Amino acid sequence: MSSSPPSEPAYKAIARKKRAQLISRIPQEWRLDNKWIPGGMLSAEESITNIEAYEAVNVMDVPRKCGLLSSKQLQITEDWDVKGLLGEIANGRLGAKEVCEAFCKRAAIAQQLTRCLTEPLFDTALHRAGELDAHFQRTGKPLGPLHGLPISVKDTFDIAGVDSTNGLAALAFKPATQNAPLIDLLLSLGAIIIAKTNIPQTLAALDSVNVLFGRTLNPLNRKLTAGGSSGGEGVLVAMHGCMVGFGTDVGGSIRIPAMCHGLYGFKPSNGRVPFGGQLNGSVPGTGRSSIQAVAGPIARSTADIDAIMREVTPRAELYGEDCIPGTWASESPPRPLEEDTPRRKFTIGVLRSDGRVAPLPPIAKVLDEVAQTLRRNTDIEVVEIPVPKALGDCQGLVNGLMSSDGGGFMMDLLESTGEPLIPWLQGRMKRGNPRTVAQLFELQARRSEIEREMRKMWTISGSGADGSAEKKIDAIIHPVAPHPVPELDRYNAVGYTSSWVLLDYPAGTIPVRKFAEADLELDREFDSKILGSWDKRNRELWNSNTVDRHVYLNSPLSIQVLIPRLHDYDLYKAMDIIDRALRAEREVKEKKSASAKL
Amino acid sequence: MSSSPPSEPAYKAIARKKRAQLISRIPQEWRLDNKWIPGGMLSAEESITNIEAYEAVNVMDVPRKCGLLSSKQLQITEDWDVKGLLGEIANGRLGAKEVCEAFCKRAAIAQQLTRCLTEPLFDTALHRAGELDAHFQRTGKPLGPLHGLPISVKDTFDIAGVDSTNGLAALAFKPATQNAPLIDLLLSLGAIIIAKTNIPQTLAALDSVNVLFGRTLNPLNRKLTAGGSSGGEGVLVAMHGCMVGFGTDVGGSIRIPAMCHGLYGFKPSNGRVPFGGQLNGSVPGTGRSSIQAVAGPIARSTADIDAIMREVTPRAELYGEDCIPGTWASESPPRPLEEDTPRRKFTIGVLRSDGRVAPLPPIAKVLDEVAQTLRRNTDIEVVEIPVPKALGDCQGLVNGLMSSDGGGFMMDLLESTGEPLIPWLQGRMKRGNPRTVAQLFELQARRSEIEREMRKMWTISGSGADGSAEKKIDAIIHPVAPHPVPELDRYNAVGYTSSWVLLDYPAGTIPVRKFAEADLELDREFDSKILGSWDKRNRELWNSNTVDRHVYLNSPLSIQVLIPRLHDYDLYKAMDIIDRALRAEREVKEKKSASAKL
Repeated sequence: MSSSPPSEPAYKAIARKKRAQLISRIPQEWRLDNKWIPGGMLSAEESITNIEAYEAVNVMDVPRKCGLLSSKQLQITEDWDVKGLLGEIANGRLGAKEVCEAFCKRAAIAQQLTRCLTEPLFDTALHRAGELDAHFQRTGKPLGPLHGLPISVKDTFDIAGVDSTNGLAALAFKPATQNAPLIDLLLSLGAIIIAKTNIPQTLAALDSVNVLFGRTLNPLNRKLTAGGSSGGEGVLVAMHGCMVGFGTDVGGSIRIPAMCHGLYGFKPSNGRVPFGGQLNGSVPGTGRSSIQAVAGPIARSTADIDAIMREVTPRAELYGEDCIPGTWASESPPRPLEEDTPRRKFTIGVLRSDGRVAPLPPIAKVLDEVAQTLRRNTDIEVVEIPVPKALGDCQGLVNGLMSSDGGGFMMDLLESTGEPLIPWLQGRMKRGNPRTVAQLFELQARRSEIEREMRKMWTISGSGADGSAEKKIDAIIHPVAPHPVPELDRYNAVGYTSSWVLLDYPAGTIPVRKFAEADLELDREFDSKILGSWDKRNRELWNSNTVDRHVYLNSPLSIQVLIPRLHDYDLYKAMDIIDRALRAEREVKEKKSASAKL
Repeated sequence: MSSSPPSEPAYKAIARKKRAQLISRIPQEWRLDNKWIPGGMLSAEESITNIEAYEAVNVMDVPRKCGLLSSKQLQITEDWDVKGLLGEIANGRLGAKEVCEAFCKRAAIAQQLTRCLTEPLFDTALHRAGELDAHFQRTGKPLGPLHGLPISVKDTFDIAGVDSTNGLAALAFKPATQNAPLIDLLLSLGAIIIAKTNIPQTLAALDSVNVLFGRTLNPLNRKLTAGGSSGGEGVLVAMHGCMVGFGTDVGGSIRIPAMCHGLYGFKPSNGRVPFGGQLNGSVPGTGRSSIQAVAGPIARSTADIDAIMREVTPRAELYGEDCIPGTWASESPPRPLEEDTPRRKFTIGVLRSDGRVAPLPPIAKVLDEVAQTLRRNTDIEVVEIPVPKALGDCQGLVNGLMSSDGGGFMMDLLESTGEPLIPWLQGRMKRGNPRTVAQLFELQARRSEIEREMRKMWTISGSGADGSAEKKIDAIIHPVAPHPVPELDRYNAVGYTSSWVLLDYPAGTIPVRKFAEADLELDREFDSKILGSWDKRNRELWNSNTVDRHVYLNSPLSIQVLIPRLHDYDLYKAMDIIDRALRAEREVKEKKSASAKL
C-alpha cells in the first residue's frame, strides 16, 4: 500500500496485492499455457465491468485436454463419487496425498479458467494429506470417516491464518485467528480443505464478482452467470476441482450456483450445519434477530450429499453452538390416530409458481416434464399444489428483514478503502435508514403468520374414494428460479429461493436436462398478463426485444425440491427418489434412441 | 362499565365485572363454607397491596377435609399419576365425566383458597368429557392417548371464546377467536382443558398478582410467594386441581412456581412445545428477534412429565409452526472416534453458583446433599463444574434483550384503562427508550459468544488414569434460585433460571425436601464477601436484620437440572435418574428412623 499513487483509492493497491498473493499460491508447474484458455482471460479488473467482451465459451474439457493432469490424476478426479473415493483411500489403494495433489492441481486449472478461488490452500492441504497418510500407515486405519476427502469452502468461512475478505478490500490481509466450527468439524472427520472460493462483493449479488478477485466465470458458457453468492464453489465442484463444497444460502446462494452449473445444491434447515465463524455480509448478530443464513453442500450427486451430510449432521452440535442434535434419518412424526391407515404412496406436490413471477416457458416446461416422469412411476403419486397466497408475501418480507440494519455496516467497510460498488449493486445497494425494533418485531410477527398459513400447503383435500380424506404431501417440486441461467449480471429476483429460507424449509436443487433447440420457441413471445414489476423484469430474460434466447442453449435446467422444516434427511431422500426416477427415464430414452439408430 | 363513577379509572369497573364473571363460573354447590378457609380471604383488591395481613397458613388439607369431595372424588384426584388415571379411563373403570367433575370441583376449591384461576372452564370441560364418554361407548376405544386427562393452562394460551387477559384490564372481555396450537394439540390427544390459571400483571413479575384476579396465594404457606409467572398453574397442580398443567418460561416462569410448590417443572428447548397463540407479555414478533419464551409442563412427578411430553413432542410440529420434528428419545450424538471407549457412568456435574449471586446457606446445603446422595450411587459419577465466567454475563444480556422494545407496548395497555402497576413492578417497570436494531444485533452477537464459551462447560478434564482424557457431562445440577421460596413480593433476580433460556438449554425443577429446623442456623449470618448488588439484595432474604428465617420452615427446597440444547428427553431421563436416587435414599432413611423408633 505504501506504493500506491497519492490520488488512488486505497482499495486498488490492496486488490493488486491480494491478486498477486493469489497468483503466487499457484505453483509454476500448474500454470496453463494461454492456448488452453479459449477466448483468453480478461484482467480481474476488466472482468468486473466489461461483460460485453465475453463469448459463449465452454471450458469444461480443458482439464482433460491440457496435459497438466496425468491419466491417474484424471481418474482420481473423475472416476469416483465421495463414497467410492473414500473407499479407495481407506483400502490403501489411493494415498491421501496423491488424491489431494490431483484435486489441487485441477482446482488450480479451474481457477485459471474461471477465477473461482479466493484462497488456494494447496500447501497446507498437501501437508495435511501427508499427515493423514502417515496416520494411516502408522495405525492401519483412517483418521475419520472423511479421511482424505478434498473439500472446498466459500470464502466466508474462517480458517486460522487465512483471510476471510467477503470480497472486500477492507478485510484483506486480516487473517482469521481461529477456524469456523464447520472447518474444525470437517477436519475432525479427516477431510482436507484445499481452497476457499469466490463470492460477490458484500455477498448481496447473484454474480460472484468483487474488486479483489474479479469475476467468477461459468465454465459451461462464459456469457452466462456462474451464480452466487457461492459461485466459486459451484464452479469448483462442477470442474471436479474438489469432491464436494460448502456454501451458504439466505437468498438462494447454494441452490442458485448449483442451478448455474448443473449440480446438486442442498440448503438445510437452520441448525443442521455449523454456520458460525463467518462474517457473511452483515454485522454479527443480525441473523439471529432478522433472517438466518445457513450452510450446506454443493455436490455432483445426491449420493455425495448423503455421504457428507450423514457425517456432519449428527456431530454438528458438538462443533457449532448454533446447531441442534440430529441423526441422519427420517424424523417424520407419527400421525395421530392414523394407525389404521394403509401404507400410502410417496406423494409429491407440484408448485408451479410463487404467485408473483410467472416462470418463463422452458422453466414451466421442465417442471411439467418432471411431474410427468414422476406420474409414470407407480410408487409415486403426484398432486397439484395451489399457490398459497402467503407465498407471494415472502420475498418482500425477506427483503425487509435483510435490510433491517440500513446497510451501514457494509457501506462503512466499502468507504473505508474507497471501494466502489460492483456494477450490479450500483443503484441496488445504498445506505438506508435502519429499521426500529418495533418494525423488526412487526416483520417477525408477519413471518409467524405466513408460516402458519404455509403449513396448510403440506396437506391437501384427498382424491380418495370418499373425497374427504386429507393427504399429506411428502415433498414439493418447484422451479429454482423463474428463468434459465441468465446472462452475466442479469439475475434479478430471488423469491423462488429466498422464501424457503424465510420459512426454514430444507430445499435443494436437482439438475434435469440441458436447454435444447426445442426450448427456444423462437416464434413465440411470453405475453400472458404481467403480474407486477418483478414479473415484468423476469420477461426481459425471454422476450426477443431484450434477449437472444440462443444464449441459453445447452445451459442446465433444474428443479427445486422442498420439504417441511428440519426434515433434512427427508429432503435428501426426496431428491434421491426424484433423481432416480429422472435418470431411469433418461436411460430408457437413451437406449431407445440408440436402438433406433441401429 | 356504564355504572362506573365518573372519577373512577376504567380498569376498576372492568376488574369488578371480570371478578364477578369468575365467581359466577363456580357452581353454588362447590362453594366452600368460610370456616374451611383458614385465616379467611382478603378481597382481590386488598390481596394486591396488603401483604402484611397474611399469616403462615397451610391449606393443603382443606380439599380433603371440607366435605365437598366424595371419597371417590378424593380417590380420583389423589390416587393416580397420569399414566395410571389414563389407564383407568381407557379400561372403562372410570368415566371421563366423573374424572372431570372431580378435578373441576377440586380446582374450584383451590381457587377459593388461593385465587389460582382466571378462567374456570368447567362447563365446557364437562361437556367435552361427556362427548369423550360417548365416543368411548360408541367405539370401545379412547379418542387419543390422553383421553379424559384434566389439564389446565396458563392464562396466556388462547382458547376460542375465552379471554386471554394476561392479567390486564385492557384485554378483558376480548375473547380469543381461535385456539392456540398447543390447545388444539392437547384436544386432539383427548385431553380436557378445565381452567386457565393466574399470572402476574404484564407477566414481568415473580408473584402472580394483577388487578383483575388479585393475588394467587401459596397453599403451603400464605406468607410465601406462589411464584410466577405460571403461579396459578403451580398452585392448581400442587392442590390436585388438575393432573398436569402447561406454563411458559422465559425468566423461570415454569421452574420457579414448581420450586414454590414442591413440584416438577420442565422448561424444554424452544420448538418442542407449540408456543404460538399467546400474547405473553410482549408485542407479537418480539421473541423471534430477542429472546423466545417456551411452553412446558408443571407436574407432580417425572413420570407425569414423561407421560405428557411423549405425546406432545412428536406431534408438536404438526400443530405449531414454531415447532421442530422430534421423537421422545435420546438424541445424544455419536462421539467421533470414540468407538473403542468403554461404557461410562452417567456423569453429573455440580454447578454451585452463577458467579454473581452466592446461594444462601440452605440452598448451598441442599445442592450439596443431592451431590452426596448421587455420589453414593455406584452408577453415577459426580464432578464439580467450575463456574464459567460467561455465565455471570447471562442475566444482564437477558435483561437487555427483554427490554428491547422499551416497554411501551405494555405501558400503553396499562394506561389505556388507567390501570396502576402492581406494587412489585412499581419502580421496576417503566417506559424506556427502545433499543436500535444495531444494539439488538450486538446483544445477539454477544449471546453467540456466550453460547460458544458455555459449551465448554459440558466437557471437563478427566480424572482418569492418564489425567488427560476429556469427560462429557451428561447433566448438571444447580440451584433453581439462590434463596428459599421467599416471602410475598420479595423475589428478585432470576439469573439462576433466565440464563438457561438465553442458552436454550432444557432445564427442570426437582423438589428435594422441606426446609427444616436445622436449616435455620439462627446463630449465623451469611457474611462472605458480597459479590455485587444482586448478591447484596439476595442476602436480605437471609440475614436477621431483614428477615425472620422461621418463615421458611417446611417450605420446599429444590434443585435445578440442566442439559445441552434440545436434548429434552435426556433432561427428563436425568431428572428421573436423580429423583429416583433421592427417593431411594429418603426411603432408606425413613425405614431406619422407623425401626429406630420401634
